Amino acid sequence: MDSAQSRWLGPDVIEAELKIRAALLAGDFTGWARGDGHFLREDLARRPQRLFLVRLGDTWHVGYMTISDLVVEHGMAGVVDNRVRWHNLLGVLTSLRTSESDVRLGFRPLDEAARRAAFQAITPMTELVYPFVQHRTPGHELTGEGWEVDAAEAALLDLGEEHIRRYTRELFGPRLAEAASDIVAYDPACSTGRFLSDFASLNPARIRTVGQDLSPQMADLARARLERVHVGDAEQPAVAPFSVDILFSRFLNAEVVSTAQARRILPRLALTLKPGGTLVLLGHTPLLLDAADLADTGLRVVQTTARQDDHVFQYYVCHTQRLRSA
Amino acid sequence: MDSAQSRWLGPDVIEAELKIRAALLAGDFTGWARGDGHFLREDLARRPQRLFLVRLGDTWHVGYMTISDLVVEHGMAGVVDNRVRWHNLLGVLTSLRTSESDVRLGFRPLDEAARRAAFQAITPMTELVYPFVQHRTPGHELTGEGWEVDAAEAALLDLGEEHIRRYTRELFGPRLAEAASDIVAYDPACSTGRFLSDFASLNPARIRTVGQDLSPQMADLARARLERVHVGDAEQPAVAPFSVDILFSRFLNAEVVSTAQARRILPRLALTLKPGGTLVLLGHTPLLLDAADLADTGLRVVQTTARQDDHVFQYYVCHTQRLRSA
Repeated sequence: MDSAQSRWLGPDVIEAELKIRAALLAGDFTGWARGDGHFLREDLARRPQRLFLVRLGDTWHVGYMTISDLVVEHGMAGVVDNRVRWHNLLGVLTSLRTSESDVRLGFRPLDEAARRAAFQAITPMTELVYPFVQHRTPGHELTGEGWEVDAAEAALLDLGEEHIRRYTRELFGPRLAEAASDIVAYDPACSTGRFLSDFASLNPARIRTVGQDLSPQMADLARARLERVHVGDAEQPAVAPFSVDILFSRFLNAEVVSTAQARRILPRLALTLKPGGTLVLLGHTPLLLDAADLADTGLRVVQTTARQDDHVFQYYVCHTQRLRSA
Repeated sequence: MDSAQSRWLGPDVIEAELKIRAALLAGDFTGWARGDGHFLREDLARRPQRLFLVRLGDTWHVGYMTISDLVVEHGMAGVVDNRVRWHNLLGVLTSLRTSESDVRLGFRPLDEAARRAAFQAITPMTELVYPFVQHRTPGHELTGEGWEVDAAEAALLDLGEEHIRRYTRELFGPRLAEAASDIVAYDPACSTGRFLSDFASLNPARIRTVGQDLSPQMADLARARLERVHVGDAEQPAVAPFSVDILFSRFLNAEVVSTAQARRILPRLALTLKPGGTLVLLGHTPLLLDAADLADTGLRVVQTTARQDDHVFQYYVCHTQRLRSA
């Protein structure tokens, strides 16, 4: 991607990131103490999407994403994946300010017991809110080909989604094992097809896989794994309206599209679903849409967050309205 | 100013704004209902500074500035002044999201009794937080002459500060009436000098007024009211370091400077203060700096919000450290 992104991968950056993670694990907030409080500050042009908020009751907690083992062990691009652990929660929100170029969150640190308790209090309907998106400098806007990636990048994205694939299998496995009729599963930006083929393994006899990707090369790769693959922009879904049982949207995050694109695309995706169909919104990094956007599109949100092992992550499940029986 | 701003003054806009104010007074939030909740949305290029937050305990309340009578009765530019009334509080913050181009706050509406109670719970140390600043489109950035205004605009600014002048007299009157030695009062962007001369009326024999303005014409106007007036940029204070007893900063708001400028200017202003000196930060519209910025500059914040009549407004009072006696 651009030069700012490759800088994140330098050994000095990784070392600094590992120190941040160690400080948060140790509950050492001195690095964020300033004036009369504690503050996280991020440039809007750098990584404002590292900052997140979690509302528990009416108390807003401040979170900070830390470096993923995927970076250290596999050289994954970017620094963070989408997994939130207890140490990513820092304290209670005390101030909030954005400027033309940065964002600053104030927090009152909590001790480890309170941070762990807050982490445990996150339910499937608690939203992990990443309120700030990267502002691209003029000349670095995403183009229509923004989500085209090469095979090596795709392999790393696959790795970044490993835990999400497992979660998906465990969530949908029981009900799909006994499906009585065909299930049409659609991935409008399917990349290598890995995610959808993994899902289809839950019931290969019943799950009909339909992929689509902007990149002809990626579509070729996906054809080895999926039953039908279309080349094309997800803004123009290749499937008929009201034809899909379950749709996996894995690309509406900041690295791939703009918020404006994501908002434009969501209703078009929703339109491909059968009445009572399911839309799953996930991403290997923070999403650009949230429960309010989904509800605004007429979808009924039944889950916003997944919990697995020692972490939670954004995982939205929602349904279209079922037709009333006549 | 630019064309967007003059549009705010059209009769259709004023009518729409009066409707918003009437709806908030009536507790009618249907205009903000969307999907499964209530949402305020503002374009970053329009008026995101209308949105404000108030933290009471650890509960964040959402606020929305409404049209000022100054607009309706006096044709003041812009729509809002800095006064917050009970009806400007809407409810409890439930979601928060910014994009490249807008900001969206979700809220759970409160009834009138709860809104009035929240308004009454605002103390002198509760901050009125305006977290979002206007993002100017390329070509419309503020220049170094950004805070130059003509005499007619200055007269309207005077009007917009009338309540602030009165509050200032009432806050400082008692202690200044009995001043035993000279008090140096400095206004680094004094405009017509009206504010500082009004302050000096509290004790004309003791208060020494020093004004400064970027505009030679404005400085000429101010000379009729103030003892000393310098022409020059507030980034280069015309007074000596450690020479000022009380400094009134009235220009660090979004219509006048950028956040980057405001942050650069604040420490320079603070440096002009005597040990134990006072800095008052106010503005006819939302400020770009807050208690965290003041504390970060080494100032001790003793007040953030003023209450007067039926309203509250941002009014920061802080002190430099006193010298320890030898």
